[in-house]
Amino acid sequence: MKKKVVGGLLVGLMLGGAVYAQKSAGKDDELLATARQLFGTLPEVVDNPQNPVTKEKVQLGKMLYHDPRLSKSGLISCNTCHNLASYGVDNLPTSIGHRWSIGPRNAPTVYNSAFNVVQFWDGRAKDLEEQAKGPILNPIEMALDSPEEAVKRIKSIPEYVELFKKAFPNEKDPVTYDNIAKAIAAFERTLQTPSRFDEFLKGNTNALNEQEKRGLKTFIEVGCAGCHNGPAVGGRMMVKFGVTGPYWEATRKFVTLDKPTQPVDVGRYAVTHKEEDLYVFKVPTLRNVEKTYPYFHDGSVWSLEDAVRVMAKTQLGKDLTDQQVKDIVAFLKTLTGTPPKHALELPVLPSSTAKTPKPQF
Amino acid sequence: MKKKVVGGLLVGLMLGGAVYAQKSAGKDDELLATARQLFGTLPEVVDNPQNPVTKEKVQLGKMLYHDPRLSKSGLISCNTCHNLASYGVDNLPTSIGHRWSIGPRNAPTVYNSAFNVVQFWDGRAKDLEEQAKGPILNPIEMALDSPEEAVKRIKSIPEYVELFKKAFPNEKDPVTYDNIAKAIAAFERTLQTPSRFDEFLKGNTNALNEQEKRGLKTFIEVGCAGCHNGPAVGGRMMVKFGVTGPYWEATRKFVTLDKPTQPVDVGRYAVTHKEEDLYVFKVPTLRNVEKTYPYFHDGSVWSLEDAVRVMAKTQLGKDLTDQQVKDIVAFLKTLTGTPPKHALELPVLPSSTAKTPKPQF
Repeated sequence: MKKKVVGGLLVGLMLGGAVYAQKSAGKDDELLATARQLFGTLPEVVDNPQNPVTKEKVQLGKMLYHDPRLSKSGLISCNTCHNLASYGVDNLPTSIGHRWSIGPRNAPTVYNSAFNVVQFWDGRAKDLEEQAKGPILNPIEMALDSPEEAVKRIKSIPEYVELFKKAFPNEKDPVTYDNIAKAIAAFERTLQTPSRFDEFLKGNTNALNEQEKRGLKTFIEVGCAGCHNGPAVGGRMMVKFGVTGPYWEATRKFVTLDKPTQPVDVGRYAVTHKEEDLYVFKVPTLRNVEKTYPYFHDGSVWSLEDAVRVMAKTQLGKDLTDQQVKDIVAFLKTLTGTPPKHALELPVLPSSTAKTPKPQF
Repeated sequence: MKKKVVGGLLVGLMLGGAVYAQKSAGKDDELLATARQLFGTLPEVVDNPQNPVTKEKVQLGKMLYHDPRLSKSGLISCNTCHNLASYGVDNLPTSIGHRWSIGPRNAPTVYNSAFNVVQFWDGRAKDLEEQAKGPILNPIEMALDSPEEAVKRIKSIPEYVELFKKAFPNEKDPVTYDNIAKAIAAFERTLQTPSRFDEFLKGNTNALNEQEKRGLKTFIEVGCAGCHNGPAVGGRMMVKFGVTGPYWEATRKFVTLDKPTQPVDVGRYAVTHKEEDLYVFKVPTLRNVEKTYPYFHDGSVWSLEDAVRVMAKTQLGKDLTDQQVKDIVAFLKTLTGTPPKHALELPVLPSSTAKTPKPQF
């Protein structure tokens, strides 16, 4: 008797649950369909026909990525500012380079960076292959004197010469500055970080909890996804920071660092000198955004909640409620992914030789 | 008929070969026996009863080893100067620290460092547990203001607090500066790098070729092994650099770097102020010495050949022949080992929180 009642109760509960689940599933399916349209799917590799990703190039590129000999001092590698152990960033407001130069902008994450339609905050490089050539020569970053200096260093190391031959098999003189950048870029093209959100996009609507789904819905409805879309949830366009008013006024109250605030950054205007590019920056990927603090091109804001508020206000003219902010942040945290295994395996670097230029610092 | 002759020749050659092999085997066995007495065997882990190496401690220690939040700037980690991708060193004459301070001494390798009877070039720390507490607070290295500051940073990160509980399970308040150092040291106690030389020591006398064995024999006979002995081929004692004359005169002609030479370093004298400790330094491990250039406490000499010549002259009063130097270097290269797999697997670092002190630079 008791058993029957319990059984009846259970059946009732299960039926009720099923009805709820159906309703919820209907809502979820709608959200899933919208999300799929907006974000697509995250591939393992973002290939470039002009620089096809091969195993040999990736292996070589990873070594170069970690090699501090591509800096004048012999201390700084790509990984110094784009640290693979901390989601591809240095977690500093703006980066520190050669002789402790403080750079003007925040280091963007290298993970999922292959999706960016342009590179650097001001979009001055068209792709990763072009981007990788910048910091090595930038006097406040790695500070090599010339592309020839980079080539000289690599050519002085026989193991590297062999690896370049293998990575660029049809080239007579494969150790070139272009190929150094191509190998690094090929490695970077493999650095996608799938997360729980991708499980959702694949159709497992239970991969996100109710708050996270509400956050995703809010993210879309409020308008965030207008810019932050595509597989990287961003990186697809350049937009003025501060549509509704100066960005530096919106961020000022969140600046917590006891260091002078960066001067106002004109963004893409510095590259094009066109009026319409004033304060225009690349929309960053939001994948791993939980981990890539502090935020914005100047690293001025440390809290993700604050960053969400600033964005809604300056870009969309909206004052979000506390609940909306919490929900969006809950969703954003589902974008925290897993770096591919090979990204976390350190290479062993080949030795310098008597011909390798000595560090200068 | 032809076959028989060839057969006879072959038998003759084989007999001759066998006799030669026997003679050579006798010589090899003698060398092997001497080498085993001098160098012993390399264990995987160098345990410390005061800080037993556990899986949990090693895992935590590796994270701390890579965590730049143990530096004031948020940029510098243990791995910055003791880079696991380049055999545990930075390959700079002397290291670069907070705000680009140039340190006075060369960064010793972290690999096989657990064998050192004392730590630092001047032996001022008794073991790795004590050593690890130095650089974090050194104003020209990682530059944290106090042990409390390190503890504050770690305690602000809940994942770390959990990991400390697991690594130090019987302690009420496990996040302490001592335990930070203990975890790092436990990780370092697993960083042995077995090489071809260990195959030889295990009894495979063919693991070294004839020149390498000659080099080993010379290394022993000339007297190098008087100081460079034990499993790490060094690290067991402190010795005056420049027994036969001032070291800085012996190294001067090899200095190739266009940077001011370090002033004369009094070595252990600076710690003890005893006359007998003037210019006394720790004898470094020679494991991976091929890869840990430049050499000596001041990183003044870049070529291994030159370093061998300087050592023979200043420590043993001997002018080696070119052949002896080549043979010894050939032997030393058999000490280039393989880092353990886990040493090359980067950890993923946990996030800072609002309570984590901000970087200062």
